[in-house]
Amino acid sequence: MKNSKKMNMVIAQSGGPSMVINGSLVAAVVFAKQDGKGRIGKILGARHGIAGILKGDYVDLRKVPFAKLRGLITTPSSALGSCRLKPTPEDCRRIFEEFRRRDVGYFFYIGGNDSADAARIVGEEAEKEGYPLVVYHIPKTIDNDLRSCDHTPGFGSAARFVACALKGDDLDNRALGGVKIDIIMGRDAGFLTAASALARERPDDGPHLIYLPEVLFSLDKFVRDVKAAMKKYGRCVCAVSEGIRGKDGVPIGAKLGSGEKDSHGNVQMSGTGALGDYLARELKARAGIKRVRADTFGYLQRSFPAMQSKNDLDEAMRAGAAAVVSALRAADGDAEFPTKGTIGIVRIPGKRYSVRYEAMPAEAAAKFTRSVPKEFIAKNGHDVTPAFVEYAKPIVGELPHCEVI
Amino acid sequence: MKNSKKMNMVIAQSGGPSMVINGSLVAAVVFAKQDGKGRIGKILGARHGIAGILKGDYVDLRKVPFAKLRGLITTPSSALGSCRLKPTPEDCRRIFEEFRRRDVGYFFYIGGNDSADAARIVGEEAEKEGYPLVVYHIPKTIDNDLRSCDHTPGFGSAARFVACALKGDDLDNRALGGVKIDIIMGRDAGFLTAASALARERPDDGPHLIYLPEVLFSLDKFVRDVKAAMKKYGRCVCAVSEGIRGKDGVPIGAKLGSGEKDSHGNVQMSGTGALGDYLARELKARAGIKRVRADTFGYLQRSFPAMQSKNDLDEAMRAGAAAVVSALRAADGDAEFPTKGTIGIVRIPGKRYSVRYEAMPAEAAAKFTRSVPKEFIAKNGHDVTPAFVEYAKPIVGELPHCEVI
Repeated sequence: MKNSKKMNMVIAQSGGPSMVINGSLVAAVVFAKQDGKGRIGKILGARHGIAGILKGDYVDLRKVPFAKLRGLITTPSSALGSCRLKPTPEDCRRIFEEFRRRDVGYFFYIGGNDSADAARIVGEEAEKEGYPLVVYHIPKTIDNDLRSCDHTPGFGSAARFVACALKGDDLDNRALGGVKIDIIMGRDAGFLTAASALARERPDDGPHLIYLPEVLFSLDKFVRDVKAAMKKYGRCVCAVSEGIRGKDGVPIGAKLGSGEKDSHGNVQMSGTGALGDYLARELKARAGIKRVRADTFGYLQRSFPAMQSKNDLDEAMRAGAAAVVSALRAADGDAEFPTKGTIGIVRIPGKRYSVRYEAMPAEAAAKFTRSVPKEFIAKNGHDVTPAFVEYAKPIVGELPHCEVI
Repeated sequence: MKNSKKMNMVIAQSGGPSMVINGSLVAAVVFAKQDGKGRIGKILGARHGIAGILKGDYVDLRKVPFAKLRGLITTPSSALGSCRLKPTPEDCRRIFEEFRRRDVGYFFYIGGNDSADAARIVGEEAEKEGYPLVVYHIPKTIDNDLRSCDHTPGFGSAARFVACALKGDDLDNRALGGVKIDIIMGRDAGFLTAASALARERPDDGPHLIYLPEVLFSLDKFVRDVKAAMKKYGRCVCAVSEGIRGKDGVPIGAKLGSGEKDSHGNVQMSGTGALGDYLARELKARAGIKRVRADTFGYLQRSFPAMQSKNDLDEAMRAGAAAVVSALRAADGDAEFPTKGTIGIVRIPGKRYSVRYEAMPAEAAAKFTRSVPKEFIAKNGHDVTPAFVEYAKPIVGELPHCEVI
């Protein structure tokens, strides 16, 4: 494939927001504007992802002043708006009509595995239809579950929020005692819950118990674990993933919630305190502990201002830039760069933390996700290993020091 | 009263933690250490408030290294531990036995209205018993409801967390639409919920609806308000106090919770997502809105690291110092300084923000609280006035700017 003439580009955001997804957007726009060969014409931001393309709802991103773009870099959430839509072949045909009308040759979609899958579908349908389109997925997810990335932009900052929250919450629990349960996002992968471990500075700091969706959850074990921690520390802080599930494989939170689903088939779990309240109730009844409190961190984890991890923002921006560079190379016919791609983030082994960005086929990020690997999960089933802490530290960055007496 | 000989002092923390209560502690300790006349001997920190005194559980605060004290200043929560205990006359007698044994002539208690009341009771019982004790309450409460203070140390930083959270949450709601309900702390006073208004930068920024406990809550009005906001903005963010109550005067959240009470008679409301889930359920059913989410901010509001408001920390420290200075003046027989006192914070009228610290009788802060005054509540019953924003701005400090396109 060779796009010799100048083509317009569409960029959009999809899925759950993050604190650095606008960094990817801004970097992609800046790199597209600065293309020395002038291969990109209009830079159109579609509002609310594919939904906006289908409605022809665009922002002309060439016209957004630099000061506004700069402000967006540190602004959480998805500035173009988001959606959770899996495009049907019929949707794709309408997208290509729209793209044809507007001379669109480049399409960038920033999001997680579902968004990568949406981009993959658009790319495949474009080939079937013979529509010449370069499609690049730009990775983003606080869940950190893309198979194509050592870690995903968005995770570091959300993990930073979680670690800070646990630091404060552990001190709160030190002051008033009893059991505190914190419910953390991540429906299938426990990376964000695992990041709570970074809160620890001292051997008796919480979280004392960490429950990931990768480990079968048993209420009996939970009660035993809490009793043991109460005996050891005189108090107990638990970090619990919203996705914990028992023997039947169904997330406990999903059974307590509204049952609402998006078009990718994901059940609503965030935006409700049901799981935390359930665990607190059961713990009070079964363990006879008087003071049990539960907080569900909810959307603050992904959209809190001034919580960005420095490395996370940097990587989100570089991933956005890499997507534009790769798309242009693909359009120029460089076979090393797929025309339907995603940007993988690969960690370079060595003492100093560093990563490289790699253009991969879109399938590498699409649909299927990865879980927290075994070497990051402690044998007792309620903690993470030092290897996880080493893995996550540079991604999350330095955390505020808290003192105790 | 005149304490001519050197006496020891006890200091303790009580009630809910805050992000700056350790600032008051450290400043009081530093001022006590630096008393030129050497009137204070040992500086004992009682762990878990009055409970620690009754158990003789102390930290020798003279021995805590300066680096540790400095670290505590920016550490959230109550470093000495806390309690929620209303002392009985029998408790007081045991406290005086303990104090007599340890030559304690000064007692400082950092906390809210219940803690002020506890200090008042200790002071009154000391007079009845003829035990020579100077007692000072140091103000702290994220609820901002002490009658003795224009605003209370702890409020500014919690308000800063709430305003930041609402900024991020409003951007999250912009991206994904529907209705978002945020439940904010404050069982009787709506100041913290009101502070959500500081999140707004643009006319269409959320929160679009603000519900304080000072205004009778009606589910019918709530549904009408949300529908109107959805029509106007295409989305809706609601900041709701955990203390909202209907005609019967009972907080709705208290009826949904565990019914657990502390010894001051306060029902547990935080540490559960029940109120948010209830409102979301009712809204879905009554208004037919598909996407409704609720988050309960919980303990993060009072114990998040690196969220201190600069003025709030400064005032917490000055209040702690003022208590020590006032107690020494009272011990020296200066009649302007009560021997059973609290530190009031008075705002000095004028263009530039400034406050002064005033020694007041302990009763001024004890037991009864204040509510958000009428001039701060909008006539429509679901917002605050510009006067509130002017009042709160300098207390909360500058907030991160967020951009939209």
